Amino acid sequence: MLYTEIPTQRPVTPLLDEIDHPQQLRLLAQSQLPQVADELRQFILYAAGQSGGHFGANLGVIELTVALHYCFNTPHDRLIWDVGHQAYPHKALTGRREQLTTIRAKDGLAAFPAREESIFDTFGVGHSSTAISAGLGMALARRYQQNPCEVVAIIGDGAMTAGMAFEAMNDAVAHQADMMVVLNDNDMSISCSTGGFAKHLAAIWERGESVYVSETGEAYVQPHPKWTYNSRLHCAATEAADNLFKAIGFDYFGPFDGHDVEQLTHVFNALKKRKGPRLIHVYTKKGKGFAPAEADQIKYHAIGKIHAKAAPVSAPKYSDVFGQWLCDQAEQDSRLLAITPAMCEGSGMVQFAKQFPERYFDVAIAEQHAVTLAAGMACEGLKPVVAIYSTFLQRGYDQLIHDVALQNLDVTFGIDRAGLVGEDGPTHAGAYDYAYMRTVPNIVIMAPKDENECRQMLHTAYLYNGPAAVRYPRGHGLGVEIQQQMTAIPLGQAEIVAQFNPQYDDYISVLAFGSRVQAAVEAAEAFAQQHDVAVRVVNMRFVKPLDEKLLAEIADSTALFVTVEEHAIMGGAGSAVSEYLAKAQIVKPIIHLGLEDSFMQQATHGQMLQQAGLDAQGIEKSMQNAWQILHQSILN
Amino acid sequence: MLYTEIPTQRPVTPLLDEIDHPQQLRLLAQSQLPQVADELRQFILYAAGQSGGHFGANLGVIELTVALHYCFNTPHDRLIWDVGHQAYPHKALTGRREQLTTIRAKDGLAAFPAREESIFDTFGVGHSSTAISAGLGMALARRYQQNPCEVVAIIGDGAMTAGMAFEAMNDAVAHQADMMVVLNDNDMSISCSTGGFAKHLAAIWERGESVYVSETGEAYVQPHPKWTYNSRLHCAATEAADNLFKAIGFDYFGPFDGHDVEQLTHVFNALKKRKGPRLIHVYTKKGKGFAPAEADQIKYHAIGKIHAKAAPVSAPKYSDVFGQWLCDQAEQDSRLLAITPAMCEGSGMVQFAKQFPERYFDVAIAEQHAVTLAAGMACEGLKPVVAIYSTFLQRGYDQLIHDVALQNLDVTFGIDRAGLVGEDGPTHAGAYDYAYMRTVPNIVIMAPKDENECRQMLHTAYLYNGPAAVRYPRGHGLGVEIQQQMTAIPLGQAEIVAQFNPQYDDYISVLAFGSRVQAAVEAAEAFAQQHDVAVRVVNMRFVKPLDEKLLAEIADSTALFVTVEEHAIMGGAGSAVSEYLAKAQIVKPIIHLGLEDSFMQQATHGQMLQQAGLDAQGIEKSMQNAWQILHQSILN
Repeated sequence: MLYTEIPTQRPVTPLLDEIDHPQQLRLLAQSQLPQVADELRQFILYAAGQSGGHFGANLGVIELTVALHYCFNTPHDRLIWDVGHQAYPHKALTGRREQLTTIRAKDGLAAFPAREESIFDTFGVGHSSTAISAGLGMALARRYQQNPCEVVAIIGDGAMTAGMAFEAMNDAVAHQADMMVVLNDNDMSISCSTGGFAKHLAAIWERGESVYVSETGEAYVQPHPKWTYNSRLHCAATEAADNLFKAIGFDYFGPFDGHDVEQLTHVFNALKKRKGPRLIHVYTKKGKGFAPAEADQIKYHAIGKIHAKAAPVSAPKYSDVFGQWLCDQAEQDSRLLAITPAMCEGSGMVQFAKQFPERYFDVAIAEQHAVTLAAGMACEGLKPVVAIYSTFLQRGYDQLIHDVALQNLDVTFGIDRAGLVGEDGPTHAGAYDYAYMRTVPNIVIMAPKDENECRQMLHTAYLYNGPAAVRYPRGHGLGVEIQQQMTAIPLGQAEIVAQFNPQYDDYISVLAFGSRVQAAVEAAEAFAQQHDVAVRVVNMRFVKPLDEKLLAEIADSTALFVTVEEHAIMGGAGSAVSEYLAKAQIVKPIIHLGLEDSFMQQATHGQMLQQAGLDAQGIEKSMQNAWQILHQSILN
Repeated sequence: MLYTEIPTQRPVTPLLDEIDHPQQLRLLAQSQLPQVADELRQFILYAAGQSGGHFGANLGVIELTVALHYCFNTPHDRLIWDVGHQAYPHKALTGRREQLTTIRAKDGLAAFPAREESIFDTFGVGHSSTAISAGLGMALARRYQQNPCEVVAIIGDGAMTAGMAFEAMNDAVAHQADMMVVLNDNDMSISCSTGGFAKHLAAIWERGESVYVSETGEAYVQPHPKWTYNSRLHCAATEAADNLFKAIGFDYFGPFDGHDVEQLTHVFNALKKRKGPRLIHVYTKKGKGFAPAEADQIKYHAIGKIHAKAAPVSAPKYSDVFGQWLCDQAEQDSRLLAITPAMCEGSGMVQFAKQFPERYFDVAIAEQHAVTLAAGMACEGLKPVVAIYSTFLQRGYDQLIHDVALQNLDVTFGIDRAGLVGEDGPTHAGAYDYAYMRTVPNIVIMAPKDENECRQMLHTAYLYNGPAAVRYPRGHGLGVEIQQQMTAIPLGQAEIVAQFNPQYDDYISVLAFGSRVQAAVEAAEAFAQQHDVAVRVVNMRFVKPLDEKLLAEIADSTALFVTVEEHAIMGGAGSAVSEYLAKAQIVKPIIHLGLEDSFMQQATHGQMLQQAGLDAQGIEKSMQNAWQILHQSILN
């Protein structure tokens, strides 16, 4: 069935309602599976409309998920979902159907598979391309334990471009591991897939034949029928008849129609009769069964809640501020090239890609390569900008050190989704970038207090002749005016943004970083109204280099330093301040406000800030506590 | 010529002596190239004997290097050497011949290509698998600049297994970049190559035919002759006739005899007539032309100085302490599996691999996969141990966070080469692991003061039911007795290892981490003899969790805290102490001793420690300075 609207009422799903454990699915006749799939699709449409969240990928794997749980003895057999934003049908079939409307909300189901949520979620995920490695680990473990089971890793064609998937396939063949890899080929990552691998999959498509498997597990080749949908249309095929998976040593089967649940059932059952590493290539359509999503797969990658009364936000998203800056800077300087690892839309680069196609490089999901590619470009005198999420730069960390920083190359990093990321949960937390970057020599690190400063900092980073990063949060700016004229901020220069009760000699000096500056000002004001002490708030701007001059100047008059940041306390920007004080042998009370040493579960960004004590109230409360303790210790 | 001894006298090399710039090489007749190669081989044998250093890989690329500089217009054309431990012949041909005997020494030539050393070193390197990305960046930059040149990345078969090489190939095809990749296939990384890719290369070998190229750049296939050496013997071939490089969209040429300089010259010249991504597959032999190295390629990966009077060291290497512990722990607990990313020998795992072959996993150069493979194994209730160098764990950083720590999985990390690494230089510095690890929740981090504590800490980490890391230095232990009996150290428990001048009430508390404990004790003793203050030295043992109880106890009597570590000060273990003091609102003078915020150039480990002020004298001097400043500030 092709649906055209997201239902607002719980659809009637009699077969699905009986399935609280996949064992109950496995009791059904094979002929009933199409109906299960249809009910599941309606239900997913409904549930995603209620909760918001990932959408297209889930609709694309309905039949695949039904077939997998029908054929494999889950949870004894191991299904490992790569990325995991396609796991809603899996959650619905494994006892979490009625909770699905809570997905991504505080205390609701996780956005992705999570081991603590269900025994069926064999491996927690969120980042891409881990499934083959994890599945291989399980397969080798079970072999060693002499407790065999089927291990099936399900991975998209987009995720396959990340190098670690290749590393894992290489190793699976080394061990002749008994595992299956299902390549869920929908011709997309979040954006369109790019590169030689995508062309190769298109070539397989164009060949017009599939490797089928008989009941007894034998392979044979036949032309495949015309399918009712089509994938792989955007991508120029390579010419080669060679098969990459066979070359690396996998047994290859497919391509199959990933929406033909009966054929999939046959294939999985037949392939259980074989051993060793097997790759099953299925074509699916992102958004399958929902007409608007089939028509615009990028827009429907994820959706908002259908009933959400989104307050109109006039302030631009930080991503868009980045995107606009990128275009403006590119107009001024022909040396600018921009790189994204498959996050064109998320990073706000749609306009740049249109306006400057020859200067735009989507390298696919390949963060390691993205960073070193930029390094190579910089070696030729160009000025590459890498747009990357904080959490994904973790994938390019060695390249940041070894290829960029060590050679002091002129690469600018626009680090998006830094700090708490709300509903995406702990896998996507951008909570560690200050720590992992600032320990590395040669890097300049900035964090803006608002969207205008973000623009000016990006300009500053760009002009800096070496590696420089601006890290900015998910979501919207504060609504301040954005100066079109770009003005560089002097390197390492902080600014005092507020002073309260200046009639007193002793100051609390609140050193705030990036997104926490505004809340710090509010907290300081509220605090100052209740205490006989002066308070100043410094927008630190630079995590590296720190404004040591300003710190030295204000130290004398400071009775207490308070650092505030949306980052882990451990190793964070506050620690950088302490390091400076130690170096200068300035001995002053200091407290660090930031994220505690634990992974924070999903909630809205506001809820998480409150929970972390990093909203204005929380900061004020911490100031109260610290001030009280300080006074007591002085009195003692 | 096959040589059997490393010459101790500078060989006579009349042709080579004329080449101070590759332009001079290019003036020679093609028929003279074999003699150049022969002279270069003799010279490399001599120079490596003088300096020590990488050996086998350099002998293997003599002819290749001569052919490349003969055919390409370097430095206008870009040669990018992957890993770079095969760049000695390249250095010899590009104006650095007579300096080659200084390689790896303080103020000598760098062990690897380095941009600041020569215009011919287009990209600094040390870690593997970056060359295609960097080369692609250059090729795309030059295309954009409309300043075309030939770009040639030279990469080994071992390095090809790392995912980022695959990411780069995928992207090179996307852009139809005009570049060549020379696959230098010697069937080895440092250890033997493993996995599906190695089998694939063996399959290409077994096919017995090569893709040749005509003068005009046309491809044609013919059987290849029997070569005088043989590669690819250890590796069971895959069956497939498919070619991985063609599948991904590269034009493929080869395999060729990588020691036939005339054929190579023809191939490179002919391939200049083609555009787009081209892969040239050459077989070479590691150690070629030196009989002992051809016979034992692993032993001759690198050599010591031929005349070195190595003082006999009775203390074991930390790698060997790890290896012995691994065997002993494995005997006690059948759940232990061990993983290495292609560093069997370096990580001290030869004995384990022999003794427990079914529990030993060399995953090839694939750090990302190594970490997530371990996570998958841990999900099945096993207890994997990942042996990895500090600098290479940077490649698996996201996997450490996202796959291991976030799920709190029971993976033990044996982190070798932590701190300063001497002659390998800044690319291999293990200077950032405290910072990048301790910002992540759930991880236990330890550093031993000596080899016995290393063993006990590995045992402690192993027993800990979650992610735990022990980081230990390159080189030898202190010579202390190693307790065979393994005893776990209570989690987060430090120990006071020395007290001087206990008759005084005020203490300097020296908080030392790992390798710096002994030097700190010596420094403290020397300092105490000259000052009227008590000094205690704490072996902190744990970077995370810190022994907060002990810190709280000693804080009252402490006039000055001094932290000492072989790690960057920024974000390091000393900062962790400051974070605790801030959290507990303990206000005390503190100084942090560690590595300054710059990349340190190669030297011996001892020279580097001295330069960093982290030997006993340096620590004492810093204590003197801090104490003096503290007294002055009290007097003021």
